[in-house]
Amino acid sequence: MNSMPTIAYLGPEHTNTHVAAQAKFGRRSTYVHAPTVDDVFERVEREQVDYGVVPIENSLEGTVTHTLDRFIDFKHTPVNIVGEVELRIQHYLITQPNVKLSEIQAVYSHPQALAQCRKWLEAHLPKHIRLFETNSTSDAVNAVAVRVDPARVTQPLKNLAAIGRKEAAKKFGLRAMPIQDERENKTRFLILGLGEPRRGTRNKTSILFALKDRPGALYDSLTPFKRERINLTKIESRPSKRKAWEYSFFIDLEGHDTEPRVKRALAALARRVEFLKVLGSYPVR
Amino acid sequence: MNSMPTIAYLGPEHTNTHVAAQAKFGRRSTYVHAPTVDDVFERVEREQVDYGVVPIENSLEGTVTHTLDRFIDFKHTPVNIVGEVELRIQHYLITQPNVKLSEIQAVYSHPQALAQCRKWLEAHLPKHIRLFETNSTSDAVNAVAVRVDPARVTQPLKNLAAIGRKEAAKKFGLRAMPIQDERENKTRFLILGLGEPRRGTRNKTSILFALKDRPGALYDSLTPFKRERINLTKIESRPSKRKAWEYSFFIDLEGHDTEPRVKRALAALARRVEFLKVLGSYPVR
Repeated sequence: MNSMPTIAYLGPEHTNTHVAAQAKFGRRSTYVHAPTVDDVFERVEREQVDYGVVPIENSLEGTVTHTLDRFIDFKHTPVNIVGEVELRIQHYLITQPNVKLSEIQAVYSHPQALAQCRKWLEAHLPKHIRLFETNSTSDAVNAVAVRVDPARVTQPLKNLAAIGRKEAAKKFGLRAMPIQDERENKTRFLILGLGEPRRGTRNKTSILFALKDRPGALYDSLTPFKRERINLTKIESRPSKRKAWEYSFFIDLEGHDTEPRVKRALAALARRVEFLKVLGSYPVR
Repeated sequence: MNSMPTIAYLGPEHTNTHVAAQAKFGRRSTYVHAPTVDDVFERVEREQVDYGVVPIENSLEGTVTHTLDRFIDFKHTPVNIVGEVELRIQHYLITQPNVKLSEIQAVYSHPQALAQCRKWLEAHLPKHIRLFETNSTSDAVNAVAVRVDPARVTQPLKNLAAIGRKEAAKKFGLRAMPIQDERENKTRFLILGLGEPRRGTRNKTSILFALKDRPGALYDSLTPFKRERINLTKIESRPSKRKAWEYSFFIDLEGHDTEPRVKRALAALARRVEFLKVLGSYPVR
């Protein structure tokens, strides 16, 4: 790692991905926000930045499919997964100061944040309230800050609310109220790079593969891991996009691809599948 | 099946789910549109309708996670999957008559439709065009029909476009142009009901299960199917929502749960997992 790396993250500023990037690379690195997941990959591919940071999975909402699909759509990208960061997510209801909950008419936020707060909103806000999706939680907080209701249903305009991060509210002098949720809400982010990170004490390997089209293919593909006693921490299927109802699989496994048992398992897997790519081996927290 | 059943579908009217429901139940049935997937389930649960129709999976974009999660969130729902319908999706670019492609300033549609047409839009529309998400393709077509640009970026207002179904455009006398996509674009819909459908010649069984937290658990859960030579057509993992990075699995398998080999496999599976529910056994096309 350079002493002062440049990092592209899925922006805008003050989103969860920005905070995750700072948690990993510290305040003294240079940060560039990119408008899309594709754009983060491209900046890493073109060596415009040293690392990229994109969300991969939320513990309640599941996989960020756009990030996985980027690996399927560009199978030959030189980009590796070189690490991961986990962030606890705390949502805040953000309004102008002195707005009562009973006065709120519309709530804006990213679809995942709206989904995660649905029960709280139903329990605490007026029945007739309307929910609108924005591209990011920051965009939603901006709407409250500048008092612009894109859907034009809120009158007076101070009665708008957003769900977002405390940092974004603070920047505009808005009021932020934690929306409690009893469930574990965490998001995992991938660190993307062109090199290979040093092997750690505990490591994880991420792979992508496409099955041959025959009965039992998935089971057979898992046999090498069972045989080598390698634990799988995640398995995810995504459409292959070549043929309807044909899938590619993403697997995270415990171990580094330079370990003999992992090497053996991956070699055995390669013989059983149509396509296999190691997306990266990297230390875990 | 009643001679004239009542069917709740994920609305509004003229969406793909509506067309899929009509393909299954014909024009003489009674149709009720519901605003959310939850609402479709509830109407079936309360016996307000005979059947419900919800999207489950698109061949390019993957699973409709909200539909799967309804089964996880309400594990004891009496609702069964009683059938499925598949629909080929053809997107249309919909504008007021006499609008040139070069004049279009903003395109509205459901996020899945926007994602599926991204390459076409990039190749055929002006560079500065802006994309906005709506709750349904019908909402997008409505915006074009009544010349209201919710994001207020389009001037004059006839330069708005939507991506949607031909039927919706026809209703308003709008122009619909097929947006060709070389890839197979199909959506699969579930038919929900309280009863059990008659066993067909070829059947499919959908199950939901939660793994015990130990290495090799997924592999072991698949062994009974391998042993009974039962083919799995789909496997999908979703967050358990109880603990971060713990998953529930959805599997579609070939066969009916009254067949001896399926019965044996499900009994063996039940002993290996923490929770197992058969969501339905139903004939396939």
